[in-house]
Amino acid sequence: MTKRVYNFYPGPATLPLQALEKAKEELLNFRDTGISILEISHRSKEYDELHNEAIDNVRELMNIPEDYKILWLQGGASTQFWQVPFNLQVEGKPMEYVNTGGWSTKAIKEAKHYGEVKVVASSEDDLFRYIPKGISFSDDTAFAHITGNNTLYGTEFQTWPKTSDNVPLVCDMSSNLMDQVIDVKDFGVIYAGAQKNLGPAGVTLLIVREDLADRAPEDSPTLFKWKTEIVKNSLFHTPPSFAIYFCKLAMDYLKEIGGVPAIEKINREKAKLLYDVIDRSNGFYRGHARPDSRSLMNVTFTLESDELEAKMVAEGAKRDLIGLKGHRSIGGMRASIYNAMPLEGVEKLAEFMKEFHEEHQ
Amino acid sequence: MTKRVYNFYPGPATLPLQALEKAKEELLNFRDTGISILEISHRSKEYDELHNEAIDNVRELMNIPEDYKILWLQGGASTQFWQVPFNLQVEGKPMEYVNTGGWSTKAIKEAKHYGEVKVVASSEDDLFRYIPKGISFSDDTAFAHITGNNTLYGTEFQTWPKTSDNVPLVCDMSSNLMDQVIDVKDFGVIYAGAQKNLGPAGVTLLIVREDLADRAPEDSPTLFKWKTEIVKNSLFHTPPSFAIYFCKLAMDYLKEIGGVPAIEKINREKAKLLYDVIDRSNGFYRGHARPDSRSLMNVTFTLESDELEAKMVAEGAKRDLIGLKGHRSIGGMRASIYNAMPLEGVEKLAEFMKEFHEEHQ
Repeated sequence: MTKRVYNFYPGPATLPLQALEKAKEELLNFRDTGISILEISHRSKEYDELHNEAIDNVRELMNIPEDYKILWLQGGASTQFWQVPFNLQVEGKPMEYVNTGGWSTKAIKEAKHYGEVKVVASSEDDLFRYIPKGISFSDDTAFAHITGNNTLYGTEFQTWPKTSDNVPLVCDMSSNLMDQVIDVKDFGVIYAGAQKNLGPAGVTLLIVREDLADRAPEDSPTLFKWKTEIVKNSLFHTPPSFAIYFCKLAMDYLKEIGGVPAIEKINREKAKLLYDVIDRSNGFYRGHARPDSRSLMNVTFTLESDELEAKMVAEGAKRDLIGLKGHRSIGGMRASIYNAMPLEGVEKLAEFMKEFHEEHQ
Repeated sequence: MTKRVYNFYPGPATLPLQALEKAKEELLNFRDTGISILEISHRSKEYDELHNEAIDNVRELMNIPEDYKILWLQGGASTQFWQVPFNLQVEGKPMEYVNTGGWSTKAIKEAKHYGEVKVVASSEDDLFRYIPKGISFSDDTAFAHITGNNTLYGTEFQTWPKTSDNVPLVCDMSSNLMDQVIDVKDFGVIYAGAQKNLGPAGVTLLIVREDLADRAPEDSPTLFKWKTEIVKNSLFHTPPSFAIYFCKLAMDYLKEIGGVPAIEKINREKAKLLYDVIDRSNGFYRGHARPDSRSLMNVTFTLESDELEAKMVAEGAKRDLIGLKGHRSIGGMRASIYNAMPLEGVEKLAEFMKEFHEEHQ
């Protein structure tokens, strides 16, 4: 029996065991080609089929309209932090951002290289414990940018802010892609590094309303422009084929269990288990995020002292509950419970939290 | 017994079976963590060790001096086509390129976005059949760029051109990295998409003399600058961890069999087997590359007619010799025999070539 633990790391993160087993099974021989998926030419018909199946899976799971293109890119969300403003810039128009944490802050920093950035709302005043309410974007902004879920602070948008028809809403969904049902038409662009909620590190998913890709300055390096990969179906150059393959396997599993509506239900159940323990602990566990802004994906909390937190991390590890240490920027504890974290893992964690509380009150 | 064929695809390409088997064996449980390498946090100590072992392997195998940094990047060589001129540009100085084929042509195109490009030598006049002789770079160029091996045309530099001390030589070694012993001190920068001679697609190796990374314009997106990843040991953001892991396994195997000197000997033997068949075929097989420019990695040749070539590709496939079709730009046949292609595979191909010749003369 292979040793497996419950992995609460924030990303790269746990993946569906079924997908890992499938990848293992066929690692030396992809689809009876006698060639590993790691070795197969991206110009082969077998790879091309797989590549398109991965795209079809995204379209089906997120119910994406035909006028949106689905791209597999490289460089992570950190690359989109500059590629988004590069591609969506409009001469003379500012870009509007909401700052809900570390990732938003980084996105804002990179956007400044492409023009004026206006931060229209921020929760920096209270350690990013909340998602600002009543966000309002102006009509003459090039685009509006939000971070859908904030892994460091454990907050997540509960409803999506509106923009006027001519202003595309751009969302970094690296840590909450497919965690719940959304209407893609509410967005102009969605991007996500795969390594939290979709697959392994090394590939970035970009969903873009096709007309928006026409804005990029023509006279620029070929790979700066999303258009380059739209025209070539993400095969302008060698794609990160294994990472795409694995995303496809993980999405196959998600489809099997009922798709995004089914996983949303499970995700709400998982998150409630942990938030209930926090809320019923009489202050032993202190939730970092305000209740109205709580993330389904990252549950953050602190204990009375650093020592107690260190002890909890260590005792959790003894029970095969790994990666519970919070991000260095706020300390404390964090349980990342992405789509692939099974309910049993969260149940075990909730049980451990209750016992740890009893032992230390 | 798992079905395996001989894969002569130009990239992604065949990988060492030993590395594939190791990856398969530990896919669900990396180093007894109970976590897959696909799932493990890039901030964990287990990943950090692996990451540095991969770097150490490159340094050891290529005997790289300490003043060179070794980076794991994303985006392939195609990304370096713009990132090289971005990082090495010097105000007022041109950049000098040698054009030896399709990849050089693409590199030149991207460099033009960063200043004046001078093509100081080219073999375009004869369908890129040769590597120009007597290449001379000027003293006041920002850098000199060559493509070490040309996958499309099957040519490879046999000796490296010289530059003056203040002009770094930059080489795209995507398809001949570690195919033979080189002196890294002859180069300022070496870059390589991994998917031909190092590992799977999804990671780019960059070897850069550290002082050269100081040239990049400070006021630019963070990830444009190599310096960003030098300071963070390629962990500024989530690295393509699985691809790096696999490169490490492939290099472990290369070390086991004696390193670059040993593989160079085998590579020369493999290439000679095929070139001898071509040269002794009385014109039945027509080598595309001139004999003095022949690649150790990609053996290109044509037959009398497209029909005969198609027949050869099909009959090769029946014998489990896969991927022999040449690049669409020149047609014909191509056998890519990178480091990981075993001698037995090339022997089988040579035998098939002789038999096919006998049957069709």
